[in-house]
Amino acid sequence: MKLFMEPDSVAIIGVPRQTGQGINLVEHLLDHGYSGRIYPVNPNIPELLGLKAYPSILDVPEAVDLAVVLTHRSNVLSVVADCIKKGIRALVVSAGGFAELDSDGRNLQAEMVDLARGGGARIVGPNTFGVSNAFHNFTSAFARFQMKRVPVGMVCQSGLFFAGLPGLGLGKIFDLVNACDVDFADALEYYEQDEQVRVVLLHMEGVRDGRRFMEVARRVAARKPVIALKAATTDEGSRVAGSHSASLTGSGDVYRAMFRSCDLITVDSLGEMADAATALLRLPQMSGPRVAVMTFTMGGVVLFMDACQRWGLELAVISSETIARIKSLFLDWAPVENPVDLGSVFALSGQSQGEEIFTTLLGSLLQDPNVDAIVFMCPTILPFLSDYPRIVADLRARYGDKPVVSWIGEDGADVAGGDSVVVFDSPERVARALGHLWQYSRRQAPAA
Amino acid sequence: MKLFMEPDSVAIIGVPRQTGQGINLVEHLLDHGYSGRIYPVNPNIPELLGLKAYPSILDVPEAVDLAVVLTHRSNVLSVVADCIKKGIRALVVSAGGFAELDSDGRNLQAEMVDLARGGGARIVGPNTFGVSNAFHNFTSAFARFQMKRVPVGMVCQSGLFFAGLPGLGLGKIFDLVNACDVDFADALEYYEQDEQVRVVLLHMEGVRDGRRFMEVARRVAARKPVIALKAATTDEGSRVAGSHSASLTGSGDVYRAMFRSCDLITVDSLGEMADAATALLRLPQMSGPRVAVMTFTMGGVVLFMDACQRWGLELAVISSETIARIKSLFLDWAPVENPVDLGSVFALSGQSQGEEIFTTLLGSLLQDPNVDAIVFMCPTILPFLSDYPRIVADLRARYGDKPVVSWIGEDGADVAGGDSVVVFDSPERVARALGHLWQYSRRQAPAA
Repeated sequence: MKLFMEPDSVAIIGVPRQTGQGINLVEHLLDHGYSGRIYPVNPNIPELLGLKAYPSILDVPEAVDLAVVLTHRSNVLSVVADCIKKGIRALVVSAGGFAELDSDGRNLQAEMVDLARGGGARIVGPNTFGVSNAFHNFTSAFARFQMKRVPVGMVCQSGLFFAGLPGLGLGKIFDLVNACDVDFADALEYYEQDEQVRVVLLHMEGVRDGRRFMEVARRVAARKPVIALKAATTDEGSRVAGSHSASLTGSGDVYRAMFRSCDLITVDSLGEMADAATALLRLPQMSGPRVAVMTFTMGGVVLFMDACQRWGLELAVISSETIARIKSLFLDWAPVENPVDLGSVFALSGQSQGEEIFTTLLGSLLQDPNVDAIVFMCPTILPFLSDYPRIVADLRARYGDKPVVSWIGEDGADVAGGDSVVVFDSPERVARALGHLWQYSRRQAPAA
Repeated sequence: MKLFMEPDSVAIIGVPRQTGQGINLVEHLLDHGYSGRIYPVNPNIPELLGLKAYPSILDVPEAVDLAVVLTHRSNVLSVVADCIKKGIRALVVSAGGFAELDSDGRNLQAEMVDLARGGGARIVGPNTFGVSNAFHNFTSAFARFQMKRVPVGMVCQSGLFFAGLPGLGLGKIFDLVNACDVDFADALEYYEQDEQVRVVLLHMEGVRDGRRFMEVARRVAARKPVIALKAATTDEGSRVAGSHSASLTGSGDVYRAMFRSCDLITVDSLGEMADAATALLRLPQMSGPRVAVMTFTMGGVVLFMDACQRWGLELAVISSETIARIKSLFLDWAPVENPVDLGSVFALSGQSQGEEIFTTLLGSLLQDPNVDAIVFMCPTILPFLSDYPRIVADLRARYGDKPVVSWIGEDGADVAGGDSVVVFDSPERVARALGHLWQYSRRQAPAA
């Protein structure tokens, strides 16, 4: 799979002559700073963007790691045959019109696979953008997307992931779509060994070889978190998937049971996938389910605890040492307990000392052995909030390594810029992200 | 309830002398441009921000519509007695330390209610920010929040809503918290008659008089959409709610059944509430469940249709007139059907004609009698996307009034600026928003 993800040279067969419209892969690769050799193949143009173009892949003088096939389906067989003759071992077939379209396409796809197998070549696709690897400045997608070096690897059956997930970029992508040859297990094996990827995501409409998939998935999940979303779980969804990836979609329940038996983290939506990945990527693991909450809204804590129940998260009972440390900050009549009511604290002090008080409270909770994670709830915007990422980073460096997650309103996105803080826009999303983190942590470190 | 929401004069009893720290209600009202009379009451200061301050409410020379009581709980009874003597009929008691805290507080709250009832005054609270009305430039919240004239009215038991919901401002808020006197039914009756509010939201930890609530809620729901979120549906959530609003929280299932029997729209999270409200506020109603999809991602359509099933939404079968109108835009081998595969269309044309093609497709679908709503899926950013709100507005003006909803990736928030378009960041959120819209539309216009 390295030839797909980290090629030293790439031929782009059927590259269009138009540039400047966001559809020219040669142009994208130059823009991204890909440092390998690029061979445009198009019989109608002598050169493209300063690179010599070749009438056929057989005219390329040097060896080629990977070919991206953009030609009409009617030409694909002869192109694949030429690639094999040229000794190319990795092909991304972007063209559509195969098993997902009609019976002619189905036959064509089968012939193409036979041809490749006979010639020792592997195929990603057809009907796909192919691959993307921000760490190698490489993509095979003919549409234009940004790439970010985020240590998250995706295996999917849809080009939608090239645009990233809500709030989360994807550093590496295998987009299999029809998955005529290279399958989920192949892509997972690449991520198993890959040091650049710390969290793996799966988007699956259907898998052919369930046994091999489970074997590999279980192995990868023992090394790093694997988050799985089953698509096509309903009749209408399956019908659309049939004309999209030609997958045998099967029952959603069966797939989810399969995922769980491999210790994959199962999610039900793109938003849940993005939030779970963010938590597993950016937060330390939890040594228990006990959460301390610092809040400007007790109503928000009620909603948060409602959402926590299904994840087995609970409110921490903070230690008497912590209570002694923070008691003087509270109004005389206000209870000193978890959840910590910041409204009561700030009513006493005025917001001018906000940062100092916040630092004392968060520092005390980070040191408390009864606390496994801390949630900060601030639906409105406070003056010291712009310093919040720095405060959290400083405290975590001093007092150990527990997850700190925040619910911050409207302008939370700005605050979320810092690498040390994880911010969501509702208490339910905070609970879901921490819930996935706790469930994963628990499996990694079973009770002694 | 008009005295609470639209007072011509307000006394702020126990206003602090500090300004500039976001905690002074007199300062907030001046900033918001409140045009009524403001009477600061604090025996320790002669004036505040240019306004004469009074030692006691009894020293105020003119009549006063509303008093906001910010004093410590130990002074609240005497302050309430003074307000009644002064003839004030509406009180927001912001102070905490009542039924939510301990048995002393519970007794104090009961005494306060007796006092008010005896004197013909109503109380919102205690333990609350009280009210907010952007249309009147008025709030009783001592914390600083922005106000937006959005025709959405909230009745809640938490100050968190003063910061708005994710992506949605709230024009009017009754925050009842302990709800010792003014209750959900009272606030709903205000919205029933209110022309400025088109969508009503409920956040409820518990209600005392269920029978009266249901009677009023059913009446309001017959006039405008009412979206209800039950909080404190779990043991831990209820425990926190007990020390927050002192509510009798009851079973989540019982409350949801009650909401449904009144034709309220029930939601399970703040995000779902915000999305449902956005759909009902900004989209026309649906005359059927048939959705046409224009998409750059078929994988996204699979996820969308999976999420549509529980709402009874289905893929429209587009008419032969529409097919004839758009056929020439497609690659020869590509199916002309719903979902409309924009990738195939754009592969033929290049993106330079994007706007023209998009306009033809969307216009044709808006005219199709088999289509009840249109979804546009664009996880990446296209050159013509900045003109998208204008295109949609023009077409809707020409070809009738069907909902158009979009899933647009990362930069969707910028596009969402236009009033004519509704944008979400995932296919599941689009399905949920349209689902609520369809379920509401269906109840409004039962089959003939």
